[in-house]
Amino acid sequence: MQIVETRYHTFAEPPHELKLKSGVILGPITLAYETYGTLNKDKSNAIMVFHSLTGDAHAAFFHKGEEKPGWWDSMIGPGKGFDTDKYFVICSNVIGGCKGSTGPASVNPKTGKPFGLSFPFVTIDDMVAAQRHLIDHLGIKKLLCVSGGSMGGLQALIWATQYPEYVQSVIAIATNTRHTAQQIALHEVARQAIMGDPDWQGGDYYGKSIPARGLALARMIGHITYMSDKSMDEKFGRKLIAKERLGYDFSHDFEVENYLKYRSGNFVQRFDANSYLYILKSLDYFDMASEGKLTDVFARARAHFLVISFTSDWLYPSYQSKEMVRALKANDLDVSDIEINSSYGHDAFLVEVEGQTKLISHFLTRMQKGVSHAGK
Amino acid sequence: MQIVETRYHTFAEPPHELKLKSGVILGPITLAYETYGTLNKDKSNAIMVFHSLTGDAHAAFFHKGEEKPGWWDSMIGPGKGFDTDKYFVICSNVIGGCKGSTGPASVNPKTGKPFGLSFPFVTIDDMVAAQRHLIDHLGIKKLLCVSGGSMGGLQALIWATQYPEYVQSVIAIATNTRHTAQQIALHEVARQAIMGDPDWQGGDYYGKSIPARGLALARMIGHITYMSDKSMDEKFGRKLIAKERLGYDFSHDFEVENYLKYRSGNFVQRFDANSYLYILKSLDYFDMASEGKLTDVFARARAHFLVISFTSDWLYPSYQSKEMVRALKANDLDVSDIEINSSYGHDAFLVEVEGQTKLISHFLTRMQKGVSHAGK
Repeated sequence: MQIVETRYHTFAEPPHELKLKSGVILGPITLAYETYGTLNKDKSNAIMVFHSLTGDAHAAFFHKGEEKPGWWDSMIGPGKGFDTDKYFVICSNVIGGCKGSTGPASVNPKTGKPFGLSFPFVTIDDMVAAQRHLIDHLGIKKLLCVSGGSMGGLQALIWATQYPEYVQSVIAIATNTRHTAQQIALHEVARQAIMGDPDWQGGDYYGKSIPARGLALARMIGHITYMSDKSMDEKFGRKLIAKERLGYDFSHDFEVENYLKYRSGNFVQRFDANSYLYILKSLDYFDMASEGKLTDVFARARAHFLVISFTSDWLYPSYQSKEMVRALKANDLDVSDIEINSSYGHDAFLVEVEGQTKLISHFLTRMQKGVSHAGK
Repeated sequence: MQIVETRYHTFAEPPHELKLKSGVILGPITLAYETYGTLNKDKSNAIMVFHSLTGDAHAAFFHKGEEKPGWWDSMIGPGKGFDTDKYFVICSNVIGGCKGSTGPASVNPKTGKPFGLSFPFVTIDDMVAAQRHLIDHLGIKKLLCVSGGSMGGLQALIWATQYPEYVQSVIAIATNTRHTAQQIALHEVARQAIMGDPDWQGGDYYGKSIPARGLALARMIGHITYMSDKSMDEKFGRKLIAKERLGYDFSHDFEVENYLKYRSGNFVQRFDANSYLYILKSLDYFDMASEGKLTDVFARARAHFLVISFTSDWLYPSYQSKEMVRALKANDLDVSDIEINSSYGHDAFLVEVEGQTKLISHFLTRMQKGVSHAGK
């Protein structure tokens, strides 16, 4: 059992404050991060992985005394897809989050109180800009790979287009280049669920009751969108809970109802409702082609790309990956594009270990050879 | 402009009370209903159409002084799919509803107060059993057709299997034979949204503040599931509202957010939150094969079937119609089965007028000929 500790990097004084996309200056900023494996001498084996909406810096290995490993432990470790015998893997919690990086639950140094809704808006670009400070701090000039699924994939794409000189390769999984009306609509329902909870109190609930009911509701919607019709049918079908008959009342009858309750009940204990609001909004704002054509945006990229999507993912459907691939190929970039057959829906990027391991380890080996042979 | 008035039929004394599927006795029961066209002499041209989740008896024509016609006016009228020059069309509001039929907002004669949550649970079977009283009252021995989309289709299927002697033909649109885990999960989120609103007060809110926020939230989720990813993208895309730039705050940025707010805001003015809870639960409980094989259930049916589904409907996907068709065909029943190519999602059954009109008018003509020629 490999133990890891979360570390923290704070950058404070100008010019190390961050001018956010909204124009607001944020600082000092702390990033929580973890690393797995060993950085080689010429610092050429570093890979950054990015977490999705409710993830954190704890991507792999175990925290001391804990029974559950990090969220992508199936993919990161000795001999795994991101092989820590070969690579130095870094994961940091996004700004706006609530897992050690600066976010709405952090104390505003100017007031001595938690930011709440006075926390400035952050975009995916801002999250990545903050990560660049961390990479500079670690003395890494070039990342062998930037990789992530879902919101993690967005960060990888921003790295590749905003800081192309830093990025050797990109693995973008179950992700897209702009958020669609359906995605925005689903996020808006989640926001209204949280903001409609009387305990939310305009975001000023720290030290009081948390808006648990609203956040749980938001998360329930999330869970449905992370699975597929088929995976829900296979896992729950119409299975009834203990009493094994219909209750003819408003208590739960079906296992799927209990699952949603259980999972969302756990979630509210570990996640901050305001962070959920901020991060959802950063997703809605994500549109790489907002100021022009997607093809032109990717003209800046220099990296090799591996783009993975899943057949049953209806939250980030494969056609969105295909749009991305077309724009990449229009720039004569090296792109491998795979749609994995899976019934797990959007969750597939966390669950389909075997298929992804083969693709990713092969791709990374090719990238590392490319680095040493071509001296890129 | 053809005017119609809602009528009411109340059946009260035993044996006209209803023993519900749960075992509870409900009565007296009032059904709100409307009729369009003229019942012919031998009462052989009657068609029943059934409404979906939040519909009502007002399926076609205009209420005096109103500018909007009934919810299926595009399909019901002179020369339309359900041609009122030929057919006598009946639509009644379901029990459990809030549009004139007995439901949780009705006054409980035993207490003189609204039922609220003391209203007994109703199933789709119970709704249909109540409708049978109405058809008996109208002196109709056989319905030329029973037809509906979504929840309306469920009612048509129950008519065909519970009262086969009444049913000459069935048109089942965008519907299914059992509710799946995903559908139940989506309903559970809507219920939690309503029940989590402090104004809901355990269902006892009549004469006080209605749980508007919770009901609006439930409806927002509904709207997303009624459309498709594609139809939302075509209608809204990433279009911004008036200010035409991102606000970097938690007010609405996108047109799709305003649409959800506007539509759900209207909805809470016209629908009772408790009815929403009861009807959702009746959908969850719907499983025609709960006590055996679907094929055996349809062995009771004697009707001709037209089954319509839509390519982009992800709430009642086509594969669910196909399951139904297989079970019908296994019983050597006459089945026409069409999947209409549409981007409108589940809403297609209300929107795709042209394709449905052709199919339905042709099918009904065939059914009417069958009646007179074969004397069925």
